[in-house]
Amino acid sequence: MKISKILTLSVITTAVLFGANPLIKKAKDSGMVAIPTDKNALMKLIDNPKNRVTDKKVELGKALFFEPRLSKSNLISCNTCHNLATGGVDGLSSAIGHKWTQNPHHLNSPTVYNAVFMDKQFWDGRAADLEEQAQGPLQAKPEMAISKEMAVARISSMNEYKEQFKAVWGDNNITFKRIADAIGAFERTLVTPSRFDAFLNGDEKSLNSAEQEGLKVFIDKGCVSCHTGIGIGGSMNPFPVVNRYKYADIGDFTGDKNKMVKTPTLRNIMQTAPYFHNGAVWDIKEAIKIMGDTQLGIKLTDKEVTSIATFLKSLDGEIPTITYPKLPRVTADTPKPDTK
Amino acid sequence: MKISKILTLSVITTAVLFGANPLIKKAKDSGMVAIPTDKNALMKLIDNPKNRVTDKKVELGKALFFEPRLSKSNLISCNTCHNLATGGVDGLSSAIGHKWTQNPHHLNSPTVYNAVFMDKQFWDGRAADLEEQAQGPLQAKPEMAISKEMAVARISSMNEYKEQFKAVWGDNNITFKRIADAIGAFERTLVTPSRFDAFLNGDEKSLNSAEQEGLKVFIDKGCVSCHTGIGIGGSMNPFPVVNRYKYADIGDFTGDKNKMVKTPTLRNIMQTAPYFHNGAVWDIKEAIKIMGDTQLGIKLTDKEVTSIATFLKSLDGEIPTITYPKLPRVTADTPKPDTK
Repeated sequence: MKISKILTLSVITTAVLFGANPLIKKAKDSGMVAIPTDKNALMKLIDNPKNRVTDKKVELGKALFFEPRLSKSNLISCNTCHNLATGGVDGLSSAIGHKWTQNPHHLNSPTVYNAVFMDKQFWDGRAADLEEQAQGPLQAKPEMAISKEMAVARISSMNEYKEQFKAVWGDNNITFKRIADAIGAFERTLVTPSRFDAFLNGDEKSLNSAEQEGLKVFIDKGCVSCHTGIGIGGSMNPFPVVNRYKYADIGDFTGDKNKMVKTPTLRNIMQTAPYFHNGAVWDIKEAIKIMGDTQLGIKLTDKEVTSIATFLKSLDGEIPTITYPKLPRVTADTPKPDTK
Repeated sequence: MKISKILTLSVITTAVLFGANPLIKKAKDSGMVAIPTDKNALMKLIDNPKNRVTDKKVELGKALFFEPRLSKSNLISCNTCHNLATGGVDGLSSAIGHKWTQNPHHLNSPTVYNAVFMDKQFWDGRAADLEEQAQGPLQAKPEMAISKEMAVARISSMNEYKEQFKAVWGDNNITFKRIADAIGAFERTLVTPSRFDAFLNGDEKSLNSAEQEGLKVFIDKGCVSCHTGIGIGGSMNPFPVVNRYKYADIGDFTGDKNKMVKTPTLRNIMQTAPYFHNGAVWDIKEAIKIMGDTQLGIKLTDKEVTSIATFLKSLDGEIPTITYPKLPRVTADTPKPDTK
């Protein structure tokens, strides 16, 4: 075979592997990863060897995610702050929970969509995975405020749950860990492939030229250094890096240069205002500008900001269709709600 | 034709019309009405000539029913207190709303399922229909606490809603009344046919003998005098009628013999504990006993109470399957949440 033929084949192979558009290669080279279109590949990616994602566990986890009886008051579910109808968030600057208590650190509820792709969970990354994370808000006094014992007593008192736990784990042992594991398994399925993923997977027409230009700016200016990987975010990084944070007086994590903060995902970012760990900023363009300043030490022009914002819209993903659960009725054994 | 033949035919006709089981006739004669199985007949029954129930309006109404941005805080939706996953109620003795405020009259949230069959809405019957009712909790300070203007401003700020309102009403005019009308239209569809309806519709095997016996006791003891019609409840009646209410110190509506109180539906009653206007009673058997005492002036035996409770289980209806909505994202024009 002639060299010229080999080269031609190589170019074709490259085009097939990385798309004909050099921007696809550039994005991949800078660490951006698409959500796989192949269902098996995706399942493998979201699975947890310590908590296998099975259909029955996901169905149980969905019920528990929407389960208000998992809060001390009977009024709050995971879905209250991570509302699947509104981008997986509550649309508040900082979370409000039991007895209308604001999050003591003024922290914004991160989206549960694509949370499976985050390296760690919570803003400070203190939970290794979604299963560990789920145990937190259930027990936190300003959130769902339930004790492990009460959570188990509530769920164990309802016959349908007993059957569901048995179907998932083969025995009637309802534990707090299993409750959190089921919720975690459900949350693992909450991924939202977007037009950007289609682009990265080789369909170059799925982003228009303005969005491609925005992606280029996003990469060239350095946003991609933290907002990368399949989560387009999700790793632990110092904050702020370069300049003082404009809203340093609101919320935790500010002023301490050694503090590592989880970079939030940019997937569905247009759906999840307000922005930042303290939800201080409602406008995506202002948020982009502040990030340029505090994290990259650059002044982004209005044109660059607009261009990046245009790209970010392509990260709006396909939200999974969810059938609202029909939850079991309480029994005489179900511990009563306590709203105090 | 011989008289004997005419009589035979007449018996057959009666059997076809009312079912072979005389209990079916007895129940119908005492005013109980089945949810029709025919879809057109049902649609006619739930429709409101002043607010036609159309597919598009129901879809919009569903979104608005789950819409937390219809509360001042962004945290509370109609579904918070009338949770469709838990029998259309919150499972609390009395409702809790904005700023964790308890209902000032200690009133229990009635179920939204089959509410369309109630003669009036609210415990005191002050709203004529669901559309009028929906305007109340939205504005009530201890509930969703939003002003008409703010509700309209929030919904009008989101493009998808503009399109949906136009698709329903033919113009972009988003009004508070239309918001409530759409919610009302959705709520009209929340009916739950049960085994009891199948029985009344002629399928006598759909209730077992213990349930049929319970139905007989329910009728003979006089429960049916208020819990009747298609709502098995829903008319305005004095309370208490005969004896002082045991929990007279909790909640409104007690002690005043002239006060008319809406008789709640017994449909899905096993799902909607706690019971009574003040949610004072969690046990269905205790509730039945108290009703015998206060409303009928009789002491029901334990056997009778158990028998009635057995019948009530047959009123567990088929809960409609609901796809959880995907709500629009806020825009720069959307008024911000106010949790204070």
